[in-house]
Amino acid sequence: MQNALIHHIQKFINLELSEIDLLESCLAISRIKKKDHALQEGQICNTMYFIAKGCMRQYIINSKGAEQTLQFGIENWWITDYLSYHNHTPSSFYLQAVENSEVIALDKTVLESLLIEIPNLERYFRIVTQKSFGAMQMRIKFLFTMSAEERYHHFNDHFPEFVQRVPQYMLASYLDFRLNL
Amino acid sequence: MQNALIHHIQKFINLELSEIDLLESCLAISRIKKKDHALQEGQICNTMYFIAKGCMRQYIINSKGAEQTLQFGIENWWITDYLSYHNHTPSSFYLQAVENSEVIALDKTVLESLLIEIPNLERYFRIVTQKSFGAMQMRIKFLFTMSAEERYHHFNDHFPEFVQRVPQYMLASYLDFRLNL
Repeated sequence: MQNALIHHIQKFINLELSEIDLLESCLAISRIKKKDHALQEGQICNTMYFIAKGCMRQYIINSKGAEQTLQFGIENWWITDYLSYHNHTPSSFYLQAVENSEVIALDKTVLESLLIEIPNLERYFRIVTQKSFGAMQMRIKFLFTMSAEERYHHFNDHFPEFVQRVPQYMLASYLDFRLNL
Repeated sequence: MQNALIHHIQKFINLELSEIDLLESCLAISRIKKKDHALQEGQICNTMYFIAKGCMRQYIINSKGAEQTLQFGIENWWITDYLSYHNHTPSSFYLQAVENSEVIALDKTVLESLLIEIPNLERYFRIVTQKSFGAMQMRIKFLFTMSAEERYHHFNDHFPEFVQRVPQYMLASYLDFRLNL
Protein backbone atom coordinates (compact mmCIF):
# COMPACT_ATOMS: atom_id res chain seq x y z
CA MET A 1 0.00 0.00 0.00
CA GLN A 2 2.93 2.36 0.45
CA ASN A 3 3.30 1.76 -3.27
CA ALA A 4 0.22 3.93 -3.69
CA LEU A 5 2.30 6.91 -2.58
CA ILE A 6 5.31 5.98 -4.69
CA HIS A 7 2.99 5.53 -7.65
CA HIS A 8 1.45 8.95 -6.95
CA ILE A 9 4.85 10.60 -6.63
CA GLN A 10 5.89 9.12 -9.98
CA LYS A 11 3.00 10.87 -11.68
CA PHE A 12 4.82 14.13 -11.00
CA ILE A 13 8.53 13.37 -10.83
CA ASN A 14 10.98 10.64 -11.81
CA LEU A 15 12.47 8.58 -9.02
CA GLU A 16 15.73 6.64 -9.19
CA LEU A 17 15.59 3.01 -8.09
CA SER A 18 17.68 3.87 -5.04
CA GLU A 19 15.19 6.59 -4.15
CA ILE A 20 12.31 4.15 -4.44
CA ASP A 21 14.20 1.77 -2.13
CA LEU A 22 14.74 4.56 0.37
CA LEU A 23 11.08 5.58 0.25
CA GLU A 24 9.95 1.98 0.70
CA SER A 25 12.14 1.67 3.78
CA CYS A 26 10.64 4.83 5.36
CA LEU A 27 6.98 4.62 4.47
CA ALA A 28 4.75 2.54 6.66
CA ILE A 29 1.03 2.05 6.47
CA SER A 30 -0.98 3.02 9.53
CA ARG A 31 -4.53 1.87 9.90
CA ILE A 32 -6.99 4.37 11.34
CA LYS A 33 -10.33 2.95 12.33
CA LYS A 34 -13.51 4.73 11.30
CA LYS A 35 -14.23 7.61 13.70
CA ASP A 36 -10.73 7.50 15.22
CA HIS A 37 -8.76 10.73 15.23
CA ALA A 38 -5.33 11.44 13.79
CA LEU A 39 -5.38 14.94 15.29
CA GLN A 40 -7.41 16.73 17.94
CA GLU A 41 -7.89 20.47 18.34
CA GLY A 42 -5.15 21.92 20.54
CA GLN A 43 -2.55 19.34 19.58
CA ILE A 44 0.46 20.30 17.50
CA CYS A 45 0.27 18.69 14.08
CA ASN A 46 3.66 17.22 13.20
CA THR A 47 2.46 14.77 10.61
CA MET A 48 1.25 14.77 7.03
CA TYR A 49 -1.16 12.00 6.08
CA PHE A 50 -1.28 10.45 2.63
CA ILE A 51 -4.52 8.53 2.20
CA ALA A 52 -3.77 5.20 0.53
CA LYS A 53 -7.24 3.82 1.16
CA GLY A 54 -10.35 5.19 2.80
CA CYS A 55 -11.53 8.65 3.64
CA MET A 56 -10.49 11.27 6.17
CA ARG A 57 -11.97 14.61 7.06
CA GLN A 58 -10.85 17.84 8.69
CA TYR A 59 -13.51 19.34 10.95
CA ILE A 60 -14.07 21.84 13.71
CA ILE A 61 -16.55 22.10 16.54
CA ASN A 62 -18.51 25.29 15.99
CA SER A 63 -19.89 27.66 18.61
CA LYS A 64 -23.10 25.62 18.79
CA GLY A 65 -21.13 22.50 19.65
CA ALA A 66 -21.78 20.95 16.25
CA GLU A 67 -19.18 19.34 14.00
CA GLN A 68 -18.48 21.32 10.88
CA THR A 69 -16.60 19.46 8.13
CA LEU A 70 -14.21 21.75 6.29
CA GLN A 71 -12.43 19.28 4.03
CA PHE A 72 -12.55 15.65 2.91
CA GLY A 73 -9.64 13.61 1.68
CA ILE A 74 -9.83 10.34 -0.21
CA GLU A 75 -7.33 8.07 -1.97
CA ASN A 76 -4.22 9.92 -3.22
CA TRP A 77 -4.88 13.04 -1.17
CA TRP A 78 -2.74 14.54 1.55
CA ILE A 79 -4.41 15.87 4.65
CA THR A 80 -2.87 17.84 7.50
CA ASP A 81 -3.07 21.16 9.30
CA TYR A 82 -0.42 23.11 7.44
CA LEU A 83 -0.32 26.11 9.78
CA SER A 84 0.17 23.96 12.85
CA TYR A 85 2.67 21.83 10.94
CA HIS A 86 4.79 24.78 9.82
CA ASN A 87 4.41 27.13 12.78
CA HIS A 88 4.43 24.46 15.50
CA THR A 89 1.27 25.97 16.97
CA PRO A 90 -1.74 24.17 18.44
CA SER A 91 -4.15 23.03 15.79
CA SER A 92 -7.59 24.52 15.32
CA PHE A 93 -8.83 21.34 13.69
CA TYR A 94 -9.68 17.69 14.10
CA LEU A 95 -8.55 15.07 11.60
CA GLN A 96 -10.70 11.97 11.69
CA ALA A 97 -11.20 8.80 9.65
CA VAL A 98 -14.61 8.78 7.98
CA GLU A 99 -14.04 5.15 6.89
CA ASN A 100 -11.57 2.54 8.04
CA SER A 101 -8.54 4.04 6.38
CA GLU A 102 -4.97 3.17 5.47
CA VAL A 103 -2.67 6.15 5.56
CA ILE A 104 1.02 6.85 5.26
CA ALA A 105 1.73 9.11 8.20
CA LEU A 106 4.88 11.10 7.52
CA ASP A 107 6.35 12.73 10.58
CA LYS A 108 8.06 16.05 10.03
CA THR A 109 11.49 14.73 11.00
CA VAL A 110 11.19 11.78 8.59
CA LEU A 111 9.82 13.98 5.83
CA GLU A 112 12.55 16.58 6.27
CA SER A 113 15.19 13.82 6.03
CA LEU A 114 13.54 12.43 2.92
CA LEU A 115 13.47 15.90 1.35
CA ILE A 116 17.20 16.20 1.94
CA GLU A 117 17.92 12.72 0.57
CA ILE A 118 15.56 13.12 -2.39
CA PRO A 119 15.42 16.86 -3.16
CA ASN A 120 13.19 16.18 -6.14
CA LEU A 121 10.41 15.38 -3.67
CA GLU A 122 10.19 19.13 -3.07
CA ARG A 123 8.85 19.41 -6.61
CA TYR A 124 6.25 16.71 -5.96
CA PHE A 125 4.99 18.42 -2.81
CA ARG A 126 5.10 21.86 -4.44
CA ILE A 127 2.91 20.74 -7.33
CA VAL A 128 0.37 18.75 -5.28
CA THR A 129 0.06 21.60 -2.78
CA GLN A 130 -0.44 24.18 -5.53
CA LYS A 131 -3.13 22.00 -7.10
CA SER A 132 -4.81 21.56 -3.71
CA PHE A 133 -4.65 25.32 -3.21
CA GLY A 134 -6.32 25.76 -6.60
CA ALA A 135 -9.08 23.37 -5.57
CA MET A 136 -9.53 25.35 -2.35
CA GLN A 137 -9.84 28.58 -4.37
CA MET A 138 -12.69 26.95 -6.29
CA ARG A 139 -14.24 25.75 -3.02
CA ILE A 140 -14.30 29.32 -1.71
CA LYS A 141 -15.81 30.49 -4.97
CA PHE A 142 -18.59 27.91 -4.65
CA LEU A 143 -19.22 28.86 -1.02
CA PHE A 144 -19.66 32.46 -2.11
CA THR A 145 -21.66 31.99 -5.26
CA MET A 146 -23.84 28.90 -5.00
CA SER A 147 -26.70 28.10 -2.70
CA ALA A 148 -26.25 24.98 -0.58
CA GLU A 149 -28.63 23.15 -2.92
CA GLU A 150 -26.57 24.19 -5.95
CA ARG A 151 -23.40 23.06 -4.18
CA TYR A 152 -25.02 19.70 -3.46
CA HIS A 153 -26.00 19.19 -7.09
CA HIS A 154 -22.59 20.33 -8.31
CA PHE A 155 -20.87 18.01 -5.87
CA ASN A 156 -23.15 15.10 -6.74
CA ASP A 157 -22.57 15.66 -10.45
CA HIS A 158 -18.80 15.74 -10.07
CA PHE A 159 -18.28 13.18 -7.32
CA PRO A 160 -21.32 10.84 -7.38
CA GLU A 161 -19.43 7.91 -5.84
CA PHE A 162 -18.08 10.06 -3.07
CA VAL A 163 -21.55 11.27 -2.10
CA GLN A 164 -22.47 7.63 -1.43
CA ARG A 165 -19.45 7.12 0.81
CA VAL A 166 -19.91 9.78 3.48
CA PRO A 167 -22.65 10.32 6.05
CA GLN A 168 -25.09 12.93 4.86
CA TYR A 169 -24.69 15.12 7.96
CA MET A 170 -20.97 15.47 7.21
CA LEU A 171 -21.64 16.34 3.61
CA ALA A 172 -24.35 18.83 4.63
CA SER A 173 -21.94 20.67 6.92
CA TYR A 174 -19.20 20.58 4.25
CA LEU A 175 -21.63 22.19 1.80
CA ASP A 176 -22.72 24.67 4.49
CA PHE A 177 -26.37 23.74 4.53
CA ARG A 178 -26.81 25.70 7.80
CA LEU A 179 -27.41 28.76 5.69
CA ASN A 180 -30.34 27.39 3.80
CA LEU A 181 -32.06 24.81 5.94
CA MET B 1 12.46 45.89 -6.21
CA GLN B 2 13.14 42.40 -7.57
CA ASN B 3 15.36 42.19 -4.52
CA ALA B 4 12.17 41.95 -2.50
CA LEU B 5 11.61 38.52 -3.99
CA ILE B 6 15.21 37.41 -3.58
CA HIS B 7 15.07 38.60 0.01
CA HIS B 8 11.85 36.66 0.53
CA ILE B 9 13.29 33.50 -1.02
CA GLN B 10 16.31 33.74 1.28
CA LYS B 11 14.04 33.59 4.31
CA PHE B 12 13.33 29.98 3.34
CA ILE B 13 16.35 28.67 1.45
CA ASN B 14 19.99 29.53 0.86
CA LEU B 15 20.94 30.86 -2.55
CA GLU B 16 24.40 30.72 -4.11
CA LEU B 17 25.74 33.97 -5.50
CA SER B 18 25.46 32.56 -9.02
CA GLU B 19 21.83 31.72 -8.34
CA ILE B 20 21.15 35.27 -7.14
CA ASP B 21 22.75 36.56 -10.34
CA LEU B 22 20.58 34.28 -12.42
CA LEU B 23 17.44 35.35 -10.57
CA GLU B 24 18.33 39.02 -10.95
CA SER B 25 18.71 38.53 -14.69
CA CYS B 26 15.27 36.91 -15.01
CA LEU B 27 13.12 38.88 -12.63
CA ALA B 28 11.62 42.10 -13.90
CA ILE B 29 9.27 44.45 -12.15
CA SER B 30 5.96 45.13 -13.83
CA ARG B 31 3.81 48.01 -12.75
CA ILE B 32 0.10 47.42 -12.61
CA LYS B 33 -2.02 50.51 -12.21
CA LYS B 34 -4.80 50.59 -9.66
CA LYS B 35 -7.91 48.87 -11.08
CA ASP B 36 -5.99 47.31 -13.98
CA HIS B 37 -6.26 43.56 -14.41
CA ALA B 38 -3.52 40.96 -14.55
CA LEU B 39 -6.07 38.26 -15.39
CA GLN B 40 -9.66 38.18 -16.59
CA GLU B 41 -12.17 35.36 -16.24
CA GLY B 42 -11.92 33.00 -19.20
CA GLN B 43 -8.23 33.66 -19.84
CA ILE B 44 -5.65 30.97 -19.20
CA CYS B 45 -3.42 31.95 -16.30
CA ASN B 46 0.20 31.27 -17.21
CA THR B 47 1.76 33.62 -14.70
CA MET B 48 2.47 33.76 -10.99
CA TYR B 49 2.60 37.24 -9.48
CA PHE B 50 4.84 38.13 -6.56
CA ILE B 51 3.71 41.40 -5.02
CA ALA B 52 6.75 43.56 -4.31
CA LYS B 53 4.68 46.65 -3.54
CA GLY B 54 0.99 47.35 -3.44
CA CYS B 55 -2.07 45.21 -3.20
CA MET B 56 -3.82 42.80 -5.55
CA ARG B 57 -7.04 40.90 -5.23
CA GLN B 58 -8.67 37.84 -6.72
CA TYR B 59 -12.38 38.29 -7.37
CA ILE B 60 -15.35 36.87 -9.22
CA ILE B 61 -18.52 38.35 -10.61
CA ASN B 62 -21.38 36.64 -8.82
CA SER B 63 -24.80 35.75 -10.22
CA LYS B 64 -26.13 39.17 -9.25
CA GLY B 65 -23.42 40.85 -11.30
CA ALA B 66 -21.58 42.05 -8.20
CA GLU B 67 -17.86 41.72 -7.58
CA GLN B 68 -17.01 39.25 -4.85
CA THR B 69 -13.46 39.44 -3.48
CA LEU B 70 -12.11 36.01 -2.60
CA GLN B 71 -8.53 36.84 -1.70
CA PHE B 72 -6.21 39.78 -1.15
CA GLY B 73 -2.47 39.78 -1.61
CA ILE B 74 -0.04 42.37 -0.29
CA GLU B 75 3.74 42.72 -0.13
CA ASN B 76 5.58 39.36 -0.15
CA TRP B 77 2.54 37.36 -1.25
CA TRP B 78 2.11 35.34 -4.41
CA ILE B 79 -1.17 35.52 -6.24
CA THR B 80 -2.34 33.45 -9.19
CA ASP B 81 -5.05 31.02 -10.25
CA TYR B 82 -3.33 27.73 -9.50
CA LEU B 83 -5.88 25.48 -11.22
CA SER B 84 -5.74 27.44 -14.45
CA TYR B 85 -1.96 27.64 -14.15
CA HIS B 86 -1.49 23.90 -13.68
CA ASN B 87 -4.30 22.53 -15.82
CA HIS B 88 -4.08 25.12 -18.61
CA THR B 89 -7.83 25.72 -18.31
CA PRO B 90 -9.71 29.03 -18.54
CA SER B 91 -9.67 30.91 -15.27
CA SER B 92 -12.76 31.41 -13.13
CA PHE B 93 -11.25 34.51 -11.57
CA TYR B 94 -10.12 38.08 -12.07
CA LEU B 95 -6.81 39.33 -10.70
CA GLN B 96 -6.77 43.08 -10.24
CA ALA B 97 -4.56 45.71 -8.66
CA VAL B 98 -6.28 47.32 -5.67
CA GLU B 99 -3.48 49.91 -5.44
CA ASN B 100 -0.81 50.95 -7.91
CA SER B 101 1.33 47.84 -7.57
CA GLU B 102 4.77 46.57 -8.44
CA VAL B 103 4.82 42.87 -9.14
CA ILE B 104 7.26 40.30 -10.40
CA ALA B 105 5.28 38.42 -13.02
CA LEU B 106 6.83 35.00 -13.53
CA ASP B 107 5.65 33.25 -16.67
CA LYS B 108 5.40 29.50 -16.49
CA THR B 109 8.16 28.93 -19.04
CA VAL B 110 10.55 31.23 -17.18
CA LEU B 111 9.63 29.74 -13.83
CA GLU B 112 10.04 26.17 -15.07
CA SER B 113 13.50 27.06 -16.39
CA LEU B 114 14.42 28.67 -13.10
CA LEU B 115 13.23 25.60 -11.20
CA ILE B 116 15.50 23.46 -13.33
CA GLU B 117 18.47 25.80 -12.90
CA ILE B 118 17.86 26.31 -9.18
CA PRO B 119 16.12 23.14 -7.93
CA ASN B 120 16.17 24.49 -4.39
CA LEU B 121 13.50 26.96 -5.47
CA GLU B 122 11.09 24.03 -5.40
CA ARG B 123 11.53 24.04 -1.63
CA TYR B 124 10.79 27.75 -1.41
CA PHE B 125 7.58 27.41 -3.43
CA ARG B 126 6.57 24.24 -1.57
CA ILE B 127 6.84 25.96 1.80
CA VAL B 128 5.16 29.23 0.85
CA THR B 129 2.31 27.35 -0.85
CA GLN B 130 1.80 25.09 2.17
CA LYS B 131 1.70 28.13 4.43
CA SER B 132 -0.78 29.85 2.12
CA PHE B 133 -2.86 26.68 2.12
CA GLY B 134 -2.82 26.73 5.91
CA ALA B 135 -4.02 30.34 5.90
CA MET B 136 -6.80 29.35 3.51
CA GLN B 137 -7.84 26.53 5.88
CA MET B 138 -8.21 29.16 8.61
CA ARG B 139 -10.14 31.42 6.23
CA ILE B 140 -12.64 28.65 5.57
CA LYS B 141 -12.90 28.02 9.30
CA PHE B 142 -13.71 31.69 9.89
CA LEU B 143 -16.26 31.72 7.08
CA PHE B 144 -18.01 28.78 8.72
CA THR B 145 -17.81 29.81 12.34
CA MET B 146 -17.88 33.59 12.64
CA SER B 147 -20.54 36.09 11.76
CA ALA B 148 -19.51 38.73 9.25
CA GLU B 149 -19.21 41.21 12.14
CA GLU B 150 -16.94 38.83 14.04
CA ARG B 151 -14.83 38.35 10.93
CA TYR B 152 -14.55 42.11 10.54
CA HIS B 153 -13.38 42.57 14.13
CA HIS B 154 -10.99 39.64 13.85
CA PHE B 155 -9.60 41.01 10.61
CA ASN B 156 -9.33 44.53 12.00
CA ASP B 157 -7.55 43.25 15.12
CA HIS B 158 -5.03 41.24 13.11
CA PHE B 159 -4.53 43.50 10.10
CA PRO B 160 -5.46 47.04 11.18
CA GLU B 161 -3.23 48.72 8.60
CA PHE B 162 -4.61 46.57 5.84
CA VAL B 163 -8.19 47.53 6.66
CA GLN B 164 -7.22 51.14 6.00
CA ARG B 165 -5.77 50.29 2.60
CA VAL B 166 -8.68 48.67 0.79
CA PRO B 167 -12.08 50.02 -0.20
CA GLN B 168 -14.70 48.95 2.29
CA TYR B 169 -16.93 47.32 -0.35
CA MET B 170 -14.09 44.97 -1.29
CA LEU B 171 -13.45 44.11 2.34
CA ALA B 172 -17.17 43.60 2.95
CA SER B 173 -17.44 41.09 0.12
CA TYR B 174 -14.22 39.35 1.26
CA LEU B 175 -15.74 38.95 4.71
CA ASP B 176 -19.03 37.83 3.14
CA PHE B 177 -21.21 40.55 4.58
CA ARG B 178 -23.98 39.60 2.14
CA LEU B 179 -25.18 37.10 4.71
CA ASN B 180 -25.70 39.57 7.47
CA LEU B 181 -26.52 42.91 5.95
